[in-house]
Amino acid sequence: MGLITLTTDFGSFYPAVMRATILAIEPHATVIDITHDITPHAIREGAFLLREAVKYFPRGTVHIAVVDPTVGTERQGLVIEADGHYLVGPDNGLLIPAARALGDFDVLSIQMIAASHTFHGRDIFAPVGAHISSGQLPPVQHASTFVNLDLSDAQKHDETLLGAIAYIDRFGNCITNIPRGLMAGLRNGDHFLLNGEIELRFVTTYGEEAEGQLLLVVGSFELAEIAMNRGDAARALKLNVGDDITLTAC
Amino acid sequence: MGLITLTTDFGSFYPAVMRATILAIEPHATVIDITHDITPHAIREGAFLLREAVKYFPRGTVHIAVVDPTVGTERQGLVIEADGHYLVGPDNGLLIPAARALGDFDVLSIQMIAASHTFHGRDIFAPVGAHISSGQLPPVQHASTFVNLDLSDAQKHDETLLGAIAYIDRFGNCITNIPRGLMAGLRNGDHFLLNGEIELRFVTTYGEEAEGQLLLVVGSFELAEIAMNRGDAARALKLNVGDDITLTAC
Amino acid sequence: MGLITLTTDFGSFYPAVMRATILAIEPHATVIDITHDITPHAIREGAFLLREAVKYFPRGTVHIAVVDPTVGTERQGLVIEADGHYLVGPDNGLLIPAARALGDFDVLSIQMIAASHTFHGRDIFAPVGAHISSGQLPPVQHASTFVNLDLSDAQKHDETLLGAIAYIDRFGNCITNIPRGLMAGLRNGDHFLLNGEIELRFVTTYGEEAEGQLLLVVGSFELAEIAMNRGDAARALKLNVGDDITLTAC
Repeated sequence: MGLITLTTDFGSFYPAVMRATILAIEPHATVIDITHDITPHAIREGAFLLREAVKYFPRGTVHIAVVDPTVGTERQGLVIEADGHYLVGPDNGLLIPAARALGDFDVLSIQMIAASHTFHGRDIFAPVGAHISSGQLPPVQHASTFVNLDLSDAQKHDETLLGAIAYIDRFGNCITNIPRGLMAGLRNGDHFLLNGEIELRFVTTYGEEAEGQLLLVVGSFELAEIAMNRGDAARALKLNVGDDITLTAC
Repeated sequence: MGLITLTTDFGSFYPAVMRATILAIEPHATVIDITHDITPHAIREGAFLLREAVKYFPRGTVHIAVVDPTVGTERQGLVIEADGHYLVGPDNGLLIPAARALGDFDVLSIQMIAASHTFHGRDIFAPVGAHISSGQLPPVQHASTFVNLDLSDAQKHDETLLGAIAYIDRFGNCITNIPRGLMAGLRNGDHFLLNGEIELRFVTTYGEEAEGQLLLVVGSFELAEIAMNRGDAARALKLNVGDDITLTAC
Repeated sequence: MGLITLTTDFGSFYPAVMRATILAIEPHATVIDITHDITPHAIREGAFLLREAVKYFPRGTVHIAVVDPTVGTERQGLVIEADGHYLVGPDNGLLIPAARALGDFDVLSIQMIAASHTFHGRDIFAPVGAHISSGQLPPVQHASTFVNLDLSDAQKHDETLLGAIAYIDRFGNCITNIPRGLMAGLRNGDHFLLNGEIELRFVTTYGEEAEGQLLLVVGSFELAEIAMNRGDAARALKLNVGDDITLTAC
């Protein structure tokens, strides 16, 4: 059973066209939607979710990801082989954090022959992914350069954690890029100042704070997460994906 | 073919992680999304949709449902066996109306060993559901207590029906908890007062009223439904899930 | 492997009920969601997306489409056979552009026996589609009349293209009903006036214009598309599905 995943900012309809294109080439593929709700054109957000998703899939899975604001221009298309997974998509950094998280990786450049200049998800990346899933690597060559993207740039200076909002989920939980490792030594109940002004208590799970209270937790991504028990922290704090933040022990 | 359904308030991305977790354990499962758009933390709304969904699936189906505002606290995880179906999720009432609708049921408590304190959908309920679907019931014991939830509390006093809004669909149709049985004897064209002030005509289907007119119908849930022909009744009436309502014949 | 597609304005939950109904009849069907996000009651928008989707599926596919504001009234239900595809849904024009795009077609009328007056997607169209997919055409007769719908009514007068907005995608790209054929002779860089007031440059892809600039492109539908590079043209121009537009060379 070939597994193929899709990660895009396409919303609805376009993903169905990609799925049909894949099934026309490889009718036995199992196609799984990671998400199609990435903020339009938000490459970093897409790269983050793809990185967080790939680890749940077995070797041999083909991951097609398309957040592609420069579709149809000179940018390359890539196939990356990483620890037995294949990543297929545009050369704008989207695939790199996932590749790096999987292990050693090889970056290959796809020959770009497309029916359209505006939908390479349908015309290039879906068919390439389907062919790979069926065992046929299409014509590629080693990519001499590619857009690198590093999402792991959170830091600790003295008592202050410096990071950014990587993703905001449906609950308004703000997932940062600050890994559990940078928070070593913290104890349940420790207090932090967010951006020098908002006090948050570090807890183990949302329900440990009172309803409507802001809190800091290491969530299911194994990253620091700013949340509100039964509320929407992003809305309360007006936080957006990409915002820089600081967390200072107090 | 093992059928597994998913019902959550997770929106996108997290359900894909649950699906991957399931397929890693039981690659032959067919995983069906009931909905991931339940209002965040709305246990009653989730319980209603789960109850309404299970009847369309065959015996042997495993239904994983997660609306779980107290994830990671002391609340139990449950497996309920009901008429050959399995329901898996948190002990907060979410599963009970579905279990009761299926028939006699047995409530079992899951041993809770989780990688995270914030995403038991991924760490406990998905793997437990996948193992059950593959024929292996994980370690459980009889649950000595569980949170009961009864959604069937609509009543009739004299000429007045007392109920609540159980669900608002994408069209703005307001589905109540008032079953067809409580409306016996009503005739097409009868008039009602909603909450003592808004007049509604009881009709057989939306298109029997003029465009933009409010109406009362027994809809596809076999429940009283307050709707507007080609319009959004919830918005027009500012109704929300959970609101109490009265309907008085007039 | 029987392929069945679903195209509706139902949002979530109801499509899952249709899917369960289908799988109860034909457990081996592969059910693919085209979209469930059509603007509520927007028959023309649904007809457009269905027409654009069917070409990606093989002969033998059953396409169930439901945008059905007059459900439960006297309107017929249809099965249309077109070039080996089957289209199933209400008789309100929804299926016709797809049928015409596929080739010669036969319009059959379904016997309408439904459990509800408000959800024929579940009670009629899903079971009829599932039975067809399993090789059993249910009782039908030739439809003596049906609601015709023609989406291909764009025109060219002198230097002016006259059309309408057929679809607005998640990016705010406004897809018109003006086909590439009507734009023959245009060259990259030509200028147009939209509705006599907004100047647009005709380009090959979004990224050829500066960020935030409006543009005109023949997009992936092979139709004229009014877009904004990395922005939302529909919002900027306050365009809606169904709006008439003119494009005049200047």
